[in-house]
Amino acid sequence: MQKTLKMITPVNIEFAEKAQKRLDNLTKPPGSLGRLEEFARRLVAITENTMPVLDKKVIFTFAGDHGVAEERVSAYPKEVTRQMVFNFLNGGAGINVLARHAEAEVFVVDIGVDFDFTKAGDSPLKWETGGLFISKKVVMGTKNMRKQPAMTKDEALRCIEVGIHLAEDYALKGYNIFGTGEMGIANTTPSSAIAAVLTGKPVSEVTGRGTGIDDDALKNKIKVIEDAILINNPDPSNAVDVLAKVGGTEIGAIAGLIIGAAANRIPVVIDGFISTAGALIAYCIEPKTKDYMFAAHNSVEIGHKAMLEKIGLRPILDLDLRLGEGTGAALAMLMIEAGLKIYKEMATFGEAGVSKNE
Amino acid sequence: MQKTLKMITPVNIEFAEKAQKRLDNLTKPPGSLGRLEEFARRLVAITENTMPVLDKKVIFTFAGDHGVAEERVSAYPKEVTRQMVFNFLNGGAGINVLARHAEAEVFVVDIGVDFDFTKAGDSPLKWETGGLFISKKVVMGTKNMRKQPAMTKDEALRCIEVGIHLAEDYALKGYNIFGTGEMGIANTTPSSAIAAVLTGKPVSEVTGRGTGIDDDALKNKIKVIEDAILINNPDPSNAVDVLAKVGGTEIGAIAGLIIGAAANRIPVVIDGFISTAGALIAYCIEPKTKDYMFAAHNSVEIGHKAMLEKIGLRPILDLDLRLGEGTGAALAMLMIEAGLKIYKEMATFGEAGVSKNE
Repeated sequence: MQKTLKMITPVNIEFAEKAQKRLDNLTKPPGSLGRLEEFARRLVAITENTMPVLDKKVIFTFAGDHGVAEERVSAYPKEVTRQMVFNFLNGGAGINVLARHAEAEVFVVDIGVDFDFTKAGDSPLKWETGGLFISKKVVMGTKNMRKQPAMTKDEALRCIEVGIHLAEDYALKGYNIFGTGEMGIANTTPSSAIAAVLTGKPVSEVTGRGTGIDDDALKNKIKVIEDAILINNPDPSNAVDVLAKVGGTEIGAIAGLIIGAAANRIPVVIDGFISTAGALIAYCIEPKTKDYMFAAHNSVEIGHKAMLEKIGLRPILDLDLRLGEGTGAALAMLMIEAGLKIYKEMATFGEAGVSKNE
Repeated sequence: MQKTLKMITPVNIEFAEKAQKRLDNLTKPPGSLGRLEEFARRLVAITENTMPVLDKKVIFTFAGDHGVAEERVSAYPKEVTRQMVFNFLNGGAGINVLARHAEAEVFVVDIGVDFDFTKAGDSPLKWETGGLFISKKVVMGTKNMRKQPAMTKDEALRCIEVGIHLAEDYALKGYNIFGTGEMGIANTTPSSAIAAVLTGKPVSEVTGRGTGIDDDALKNKIKVIEDAILINNPDPSNAVDVLAKVGGTEIGAIAGLIIGAAANRIPVVIDGFISTAGALIAYCIEPKTKDYMFAAHNSVEIGHKAMLEKIGLRPILDLDLRLGEGTGAALAMLMIEAGLKIYKEMATFGEAGVSKNE
């Protein structure tokens, strides 16, 4: 990780200015395409390329189980994590549909599912109807953080390294934008714990209903998270410690993917609440990673906003989504790409023979 | 118009319920795809088809000039209206780029440009590089509403009829979703006038900077609108009177398109500020048209929100756009289509072998 962190530099402002100059000469009032212009400017600055290309898009859906699921913090049984992995690989999940819509590929990464995917090798493996599975299992699910740390420090670091290596691999393979996604029953619980520790807000202010629990279950969930923080005493100034004690494998891998993306100058689209917990870990490890992040959407989960504000990101969409998997990232990619097309394809005032403003 | 208005019925709630039943059986927590689910539900209810199709999308960009432009209410000279029509037809404008991105066609309708497009016939005419031009000119620009009514009542009604007939024609041609768009230098001025009259808010609260005027020009613009309302005294209970006295040709055509869409059970995506002025006219003529409208985005123009609230629409996107042309409608179509794909393509719990919530 240290070697990768050293590669991360702030994005190139000169390139952003070059992009702005072109944007201001297109046949529209200056700034009138708002955030689409921002997306184009940022892509140019990130890639240091005045004509960036987004022709190979990929969303990594990291799957992991959580020991804390035994505390009944979720509306769904733990088995759903592995069942959904098969659903992803068969192309029937929300992320498959929306990734097809955005013309992005989906890779499902087993980072910590408590299930032996016997058919899975160590390299990308084509599954039945075309989904792609990557086996990078670090643990068979985390430990119950209400009783002990979710992971050891070494396990947490290995999750981050998986993300970093994937970013490097897929940058080399020519992918030019990444999206984050996740699947893990109970994973809003560690995400809320991370949000509370790293933003300093009370647990009750950053804990929501996840997949849809009732009032009593929400009260219990808040208590579980408070207990987990009390028992493990994570160090807010040490994001890896927070990740290990009250985090999750998929959250660590997402943090690593973002760090790797920044080191390789690849824009990375952060999905929703859980992905943003990973982004906050990455940001606390290296604040310069922020320059490479796009926040896909504003989740229904109440703790999401606090984390986005801490990083300083403004979400692209606000569609009341709370599914995860990378679904918001897929949709946001369509908007980012729209910005790039505006930048590259619109006519200038000169080309079109249109008068500029007086 | 009266015949068309009689054809408009509220959307079919039974179909919405059928759609919800299917959505709740897809492999995701109930409601977790938020507004995407709403879009699917509404499309099913609008079309009375449990498997709606959105394979032929069209955006109509209505172009018209405004006599009030001589009051220096815009940052651009009036000639830009016709120059931009040629830009549309050559494929170089923002709407061309974003419609291609959304795989929608763009038709440019001359409803009131103060220019003789000699090459244009009365039927769709293929222009140089593939744009499509429809000549439906009602007037050579409106009159200056600071001095007299912008249009006669008859002219206003003819603009509405143009929109109605286009909706009928393109429904027959198999188009299954419409988007509204417009081009007309100075047209935020009549739009703000309509907003003020029909929402009852002071002119200063619904008047913004349009293409980007400075403080002094904004003060002048507000005065011009106040004068126009004072001089013409439009009747807030008569939307056609408001359209004629302080409106514009493209705004009338948009109102007509929406009325025609509703009569033909076609969903219609309302672009930004000016399009919403047209939508508000349609809504005031027949409130049931609301069921067929999708509000594309939340414009930077300050009067937009008041009109959306009056109709009761929640915008889909919020990307600081203020270009018009239909650009927001094109982007919103991508989100509406995403909702439909979720509804049609996701696996059910049974198909995927995934456990439902406990």
